[in-house]
Amino acid sequence: DEEWIQEAEDINEEAGPYAEEPIRSPKLIVQGEAPFNAEPELKLLVHDQLTPNDLFYVRNHMPVPVIHPEEYRLEVVDTNGKMLVSLSLEDLKKLPKHVVAATIQCAGNRRNELDAVKKVKGGRWEGGAISNAEWGGARLADVLALSPSSAKTIEISEAHHLCFEGLDTDPGTGAVYAASIPVDVLHRVPDVLLAYEMNGETLPRDHGYPVRAVVPGIVGARCVKWLGRVVLSKEESTSHWQRQDYRSFSPGVDWDTVDFTKAPSIQEMPVVSSICDHSLDGEKKTISMSGYAWSGDGKGIIRVDVSADGGKTWQEAALRKKGSQKRNETYDWTLWDATIKAPANGKTELVCKAVDSAYNTQPERAESIWNLRGLLNNAWHRVDVDKV
Amino acid sequence: DEEWIQEAEDINEEAGPYAEEPIRSPKLIVQGEAPFNAEPELKLLVHDQLTPNDLFYVRNHMPVPVIHPEEYRLEVVDTNGKMLVSLSLEDLKKLPKHVVAATIQCAGNRRNELDAVKKVKGGRWEGGAISNAEWGGARLADVLALSPSSAKTIEISEAHHLCFEGLDTDPGTGAVYAASIPVDVLHRVPDVLLAYEMNGETLPRDHGYPVRAVVPGIVGARCVKWLGRVVLSKEESTSHWQRQDYRSFSPGVDWDTVDFTKAPSIQEMPVVSSICDHSLDGEKKTISMSGYAWSGDGKGIIRVDVSADGGKTWQEAALRKKGSQKRNETYDWTLWDATIKAPANGKTELVCKAVDSAYNTQPERAESIWNLRGLLNNAWHRVDVDKV
Ligand SMILES: [Mo]
Ligand SMILES: [Mo]
Repeated sequence: DEEWIQEAEDINEEAGPYAEEPIRSPKLIVQGEAPFNAEPELKLLVHDQLTPNDLFYVRNHMPVPVIHPEEYRLEVVDTNGKMLVSLSLEDLKKLPKHVVAATIQCAGNRRNELDAVKKVKGGRWEGGAISNAEWGGARLADVLALSPSSAKTIEISEAHHLCFEGLDTDPGTGAVYAASIPVDVLHRVPDVLLAYEMNGETLPRDHGYPVRAVVPGIVGARCVKWLGRVVLSKEESTSHWQRQDYRSFSPGVDWDTVDFTKAPSIQEMPVVSSICDHSLDGEKKTISMSGYAWSGDGKGIIRVDVSADGGKTWQEAALRKKGSQKRNETYDWTLWDATIKAPANGKTELVCKAVDSAYNTQPERAESIWNLRGLLNNAWHRVDVDKV
Repeated sequence: DEEWIQEAEDINEEAGPYAEEPIRSPKLIVQGEAPFNAEPELKLLVHDQLTPNDLFYVRNHMPVPVIHPEEYRLEVVDTNGKMLVSLSLEDLKKLPKHVVAATIQCAGNRRNELDAVKKVKGGRWEGGAISNAEWGGARLADVLALSPSSAKTIEISEAHHLCFEGLDTDPGTGAVYAASIPVDVLHRVPDVLLAYEMNGETLPRDHGYPVRAVVPGIVGARCVKWLGRVVLSKEESTSHWQRQDYRSFSPGVDWDTVDFTKAPSIQEMPVVSSICDHSLDGEKKTISMSGYAWSGDGKGIIRVDVSADGGKTWQEAALRKKGSQKRNETYDWTLWDATIKAPANGKTELVCKAVDSAYNTQPERAESIWNLRGLLNNAWHRVDVDKV
């Protein structure tokens, strides 16, 4: 853990609130420097089922806080503001460790395509604002069970939302990043974790060191990093990010007419897929493609269809993950590969679309799901390629 | 209950296996006489949140059996074929009665549009093979809990599927209708019912008198009518309808290449919506539209978008059901209404598409989800209308 503090001190010579950012991989494509937002090149995502920590997309809202592990506390507070649980990092690590493979995706992934339809607010993510890791940590349910028994029976039963508060603060307003999940998620998803490990390593600073929330099947915005407090609440988090962001609207709604109370906060996510890499075999006149597919709410991927003629004809991709994914408890993505004949005539346009275990599928065009914040673009993914 | 037997006897003068069918409403549009398959006119579906029993779509696979209530038994059988529970209708009614509002939809609803793309097997349902009712009955979980305790701990834990066997039999082969659900559904959906009431009335013969399975959020094919046995099983039902039907495939798969083991049986269903009624106001140059929207797996409907120009521009419909649908436990449909300006130029083509609480939405064209059995057509619903 010492190394992180060392790094932070090394770059402390730069002034300002972003002076203590961690060192990052040069392989990341930077969408924003301060706060830091970056995604890996798409083709790097399909090398491994687990995304290496240094390639995992980074979506920060504020400067990365410097947290000394011996000073860290995780606090749980009841609906009246009373402290129920206060744990050191070592206390947290003494609880049973659970490991869950879970994909986390930014709600703004593939915003670039929505922005191309009509200007939207937000970083122009290209499809790499999604990654997959094995997260290790304590179950949130086990931490809540440490509450005094009166609190357990009364306060927890009155809570309809679990608010996560980060230790990252806005340099201007002093606000901390915060977001909440409905309490029913905890009953549906046993492995809602307070994670301190990522792919078997100490959680990196950019991913929430020392502890982040991991809520499998739920949008990245609720997987709060640098987690300081969990507040049991009758209401959703009152944060900007819960109330005025991370909700989606009809294509006809613009910034003059939008009412953020009219749409629910994004929690479970719809089925998505992307083409991450492709190569042409000019002799065989075939195209090889690889990509990812994922769906929220624990839904598995049952099929990926690919096309080389813009969606006129389709064939099935081969899914790398074989056999029995657990029904409604599949939280990690499915990588896929396909080799398809290039069309004899006309334009070669590669397309993919996935089907999840509830047989939900993807909409055809970004136009039909355009929304003013540029969120939840799960339209068919398309890649124009030169003729073979 | 006497009246049903009386009816059956009245029409007994006709010969053959379909001699004892019940009397049906003349308002039903008949897709097939024997077995009987019929749907209500679409515009009748949006009159009430609850579909009247005599208008509720009927999807039978065999003749309607004549079941004398005093002779009826519901049996539960373990993985070794041993009888665990055997109940009379009166025994079943002594268990706590639960009521759940749940929409049931045939997997083949709106098959007519898929058939128009390319010929498929099956009845050409036009969008009315979906209806909504309040079902009253005993929880399946309460019936299973009547098992001897040794069975409860051993046999039920070994069961991965609950097979429902009907008392309807194929006149040719003698096979009974049967289908199964994965046992995890029972943990996710408390109100899996053995229903003997429909909208407060005795379950009608066409809907499974005296007892049917109602599995909220799951395809109609698993809501087995005239339920005789529940078999705890390590495997899915071996019935034709479980293994060789009610699965969907890529548009590229035809009857020469299909392998039914390659797709999972349909259980939870994707988000759907339909325009059920519309009227033109020539003076105001507006169009009023009404319809339904629904999603499986307990997902609620958060938005319905409508268009009068074939999907170029969109506005939001008003949802009739207000306020707090229970997250992930909303099993009944959402009816909606909209008034939209007719386009000044070009063709008037009405379209609707819905968004569910996981922000899943519908695909644009039936072509892209065509499958050889014509199942799960949840493409945008379109209605061509004359110019205002
Ligand atoms: Mo995000
Ligand atoms: Mo069906």
